[in-house]
Amino acid sequence: MNGAESLLRTAIAAGIEVCFANPGTTEMPIVAALDTVPGIRAVLCLFEGVCAGAADGYGRMKNKPAMTLLHLGPGFANGIAYLHDARRARSPIVNLVGEMATWHLAADAPLASDIASLARSVSAWVRSNRSAEELAADMADAIAAASVPPGQIATLIAPHDCQMGPAGGPIPARPVPPAPRASDEAIKRAAEVLLKEEAALLLGGTALDERGLRAAARVASVTGCRLICETFPKRMERGATLPSVERLPYFPEQAIRMLSYYQTIILAGVKEPVSFFGYPGIPSYLISPEQRAIALAAPEEDVPAALESLADALGAPAGAMESNFATRPSRPTGALTRESFAAAIAAAQPEGAIIMDEGNTSSAAYFQMSNAAPPFTYLTQPGGAIGLGPPCATGAAIACPDRPVINLQADGSAMYTLQSLWTQAREGLNVTTVICNNRSYWILGYELRRAGVKELGAQAQRLIELTNPPLDWVQLAGGMGVPGVRVETAEALVKELKRALDAGGPNLIEAVL
Amino acid sequence: MNGAESLLRTAIAAGIEVCFANPGTTEMPIVAALDTVPGIRAVLCLFEGVCAGAADGYGRMKNKPAMTLLHLGPGFANGIAYLHDARRARSPIVNLVGEMATWHLAADAPLASDIASLARSVSAWVRSNRSAEELAADMADAIAAASVPPGQIATLIAPHDCQMGPAGGPIPARPVPPAPRASDEAIKRAAEVLLKEEAALLLGGTALDERGLRAAARVASVTGCRLICETFPKRMERGATLPSVERLPYFPEQAIRMLSYYQTIILAGVKEPVSFFGYPGIPSYLISPEQRAIALAAPEEDVPAALESLADALGAPAGAMESNFATRPSRPTGALTRESFAAAIAAAQPEGAIIMDEGNTSSAAYFQMSNAAPPFTYLTQPGGAIGLGPPCATGAAIACPDRPVINLQADGSAMYTLQSLWTQAREGLNVTTVICNNRSYWILGYELRRAGVKELGAQAQRLIELTNPPLDWVQLAGGMGVPGVRVETAEALVKELKRALDAGGPNLIEAVL
Repeated sequence: MNGAESLLRTAIAAGIEVCFANPGTTEMPIVAALDTVPGIRAVLCLFEGVCAGAADGYGRMKNKPAMTLLHLGPGFANGIAYLHDARRARSPIVNLVGEMATWHLAADAPLASDIASLARSVSAWVRSNRSAEELAADMADAIAAASVPPGQIATLIAPHDCQMGPAGGPIPARPVPPAPRASDEAIKRAAEVLLKEEAALLLGGTALDERGLRAAARVASVTGCRLICETFPKRMERGATLPSVERLPYFPEQAIRMLSYYQTIILAGVKEPVSFFGYPGIPSYLISPEQRAIALAAPEEDVPAALESLADALGAPAGAMESNFATRPSRPTGALTRESFAAAIAAAQPEGAIIMDEGNTSSAAYFQMSNAAPPFTYLTQPGGAIGLGPPCATGAAIACPDRPVINLQADGSAMYTLQSLWTQAREGLNVTTVICNNRSYWILGYELRRAGVKELGAQAQRLIELTNPPLDWVQLAGGMGVPGVRVETAEALVKELKRALDAGGPNLIEAVL
Repeated sequence: MNGAESLLRTAIAAGIEVCFANPGTTEMPIVAALDTVPGIRAVLCLFEGVCAGAADGYGRMKNKPAMTLLHLGPGFANGIAYLHDARRARSPIVNLVGEMATWHLAADAPLASDIASLARSVSAWVRSNRSAEELAADMADAIAAASVPPGQIATLIAPHDCQMGPAGGPIPARPVPPAPRASDEAIKRAAEVLLKEEAALLLGGTALDERGLRAAARVASVTGCRLICETFPKRMERGATLPSVERLPYFPEQAIRMLSYYQTIILAGVKEPVSFFGYPGIPSYLISPEQRAIALAAPEEDVPAALESLADALGAPAGAMESNFATRPSRPTGALTRESFAAAIAAAQPEGAIIMDEGNTSSAAYFQMSNAAPPFTYLTQPGGAIGLGPPCATGAAIACPDRPVINLQADGSAMYTLQSLWTQAREGLNVTTVICNNRSYWILGYELRRAGVKELGAQAQRLIELTNPPLDWVQLAGGMGVPGVRVETAEALVKELKRALDAGGPNLIEAVL
């Protein structure tokens, strides 16, 4: 058995099932071992950003890591933007990066670079393996590191000769400690606040899984506290039969206003909220020094259990929940606006859908419109690196082959990772990509106007508009084997979405807004 | 005047003319200043890898830096692969990267990350600006650092509030010292060797400009030394009226064989050559310990001047040159093979063409076939990060609007940076992309077989083949506004290449190999 084979056997023993790969010469022993050691499904992505984003989506849906297989420093670098998103999402990912043979490192070959420094920028755990015998143990450690709840990024750098060299048998999976429980004091203090004042409960991370949400709803049912979720949840269970939660607005002045009604904000699974960007005259922290933020449970702790303990402490009956007063929008007709776009998706999405929302400004109305849709899972981008949507949807579809995935996708962001469509076609994934084509980086024009620029100059205009030429998403999808269609009305969007979901497999709908 | 305006005025004073940009919220003051301070052409790229690769191509053709404008850490990270290539090419580039407002840094907002650490991995010079008043001086320093011959990467990180804050006037361009001259001893020693033995002269970097090549030809004309160029030149002048130079082969066993005939190899503008990858049983260094390598001039020195001094020392007459015995291939017909593909390009390329060759295995025959083409400039990828071709061709076309650019482009690599086509369309650039569509990462199958794998397993096959579905490059190009056509014979390739070059503007030809 060589190092590559012992590594893969170790990965299989620890439950790794999928490898999102774009290998090169230095990873060929791993590639060969994927056949000699069956058990891991290799998924080719035509750009490493797709590998990284897909591993994020997979990890969010499976609560366990997939592995990526990346080629040297430049290959890893191409994944960093979406590993940044995954780090903010606290997703579990194991990156396996090839390296020059140990004896060839000193030659500083053209493709050589300092991989470990790049890896440290986004990884909680990095190791440079230096022997074939230790490769299996290093992989076991990497998987254990990635599996620390709720999830971390671990990067193992494996030289070519160590992949090829003789190695012993696989290593059994390392034990992974469960998420620590929140302290009794934290629960007691939160209960005291909730009994005394009208507070807000800010939910994020694992607080937004079904168990966390139902416990939060019990808390609200007896205390009347307001339930607010973080702006960009990694994963949230939503829909008609689930507790309804308001979303913290993106722009800081709106978020500050929403939170300003409460003396105390109780944090469950989130850090203290901050503004996405620093705007002159607006503070970084959304909770003012005159208010107070108290933590019920940190993101790394068992947040659903903490919420349940809190509900119990408050004597909330099991299953108590405010009625969800939202109604599902009826099917819209007429021109496609942001509102009719959001209503069309919310009206047409089937039960059990996974919605990856990187619609940005175009899908801003969707969150609220979808409150009463049949139960679904909602994914966003906690790290803000644009282009995560298509690969994240790809990984979610690999993780959940029986669920329809709908990717609401801004056009400018989609161009970063359009190669995802090919992997969706190759693997026959149930992903319907709905391109929100407003032919601009709309948010940037808005930001310029917010900053006081009254009239955009010619160069600024050209840096913001995606026109001259317009992008033709039907052709782009067709070029990668994904059937596409363009719609310009709300009724056409509903019809084509139904058709795409009935047909199954990958589809693209270009919605011209 | 604000910091952004003083920065741009400083850049203009130092000769910066072009900015390859993909800005976000933190770079909006720079975007606004591009209009209030006219003089720099902003070129929007729909992915930061395109910005970086375009700046590389521009720098190679202009011998001065363009600037990039990138959004925070994830935006910079998306450029790293092609900054790696540019670093190996020693191209001049100034990266301007936005940063969170200084007062917002501590909040660790979702998009915040350690930009400087990422920047250091590929930059010779990195600075994190911290005040509006110093932004102009920091930019002047960055441009000077990038301009150190033959070129370096300089990265300036500029916080949002420093771009907006009040600043003084622009800073005059810093003086940049010329490339140092090689030592007299190095020239004397090389001359002694060449008079005593049959040696090889290995040329790289600036040795491959017209002056360097003509001087090298003079040296060869009186000593009979063999002229060999590095495997992946950043830029080389080539064609019928220029000295003919052999290329060091890619595979180390072939390169070692070529060099093994010489007791001494004289290095002009190159480091000692090493194998691209470490293969078991084959040494890292291509010149054996029994041979010797002596340096005439290091890559940072004035290599053409050193070659001229060497020719003078040897008493070589001005203009002496071996005849170029190569003949231009006649227009091929029939099936497209690697040979007929290469012959078709070499037969059809016009005088003054810029050929960006990332054809990889598909264009392997082109270097030799094009020896007698009308004079042209030849660009390759010194760093080996795949996908450089399309952006590098884009930047070369911006630098040289009157010259036709032909990008010989492997299909797998092209998928990394296909967004380049949109910028070519937007800017109306004279770039003809010839996709070498062999529907595979062909080199990887070859490497697996070299490593002794006799039959590829099913998973390995799927990681190497770009089939199921095939990529349709005519549709992909059309989706970005570039007219495309597919050819399956050599005569069709010649015909379509002529047509595309006559038509001008961006074009794509998918050559099915």
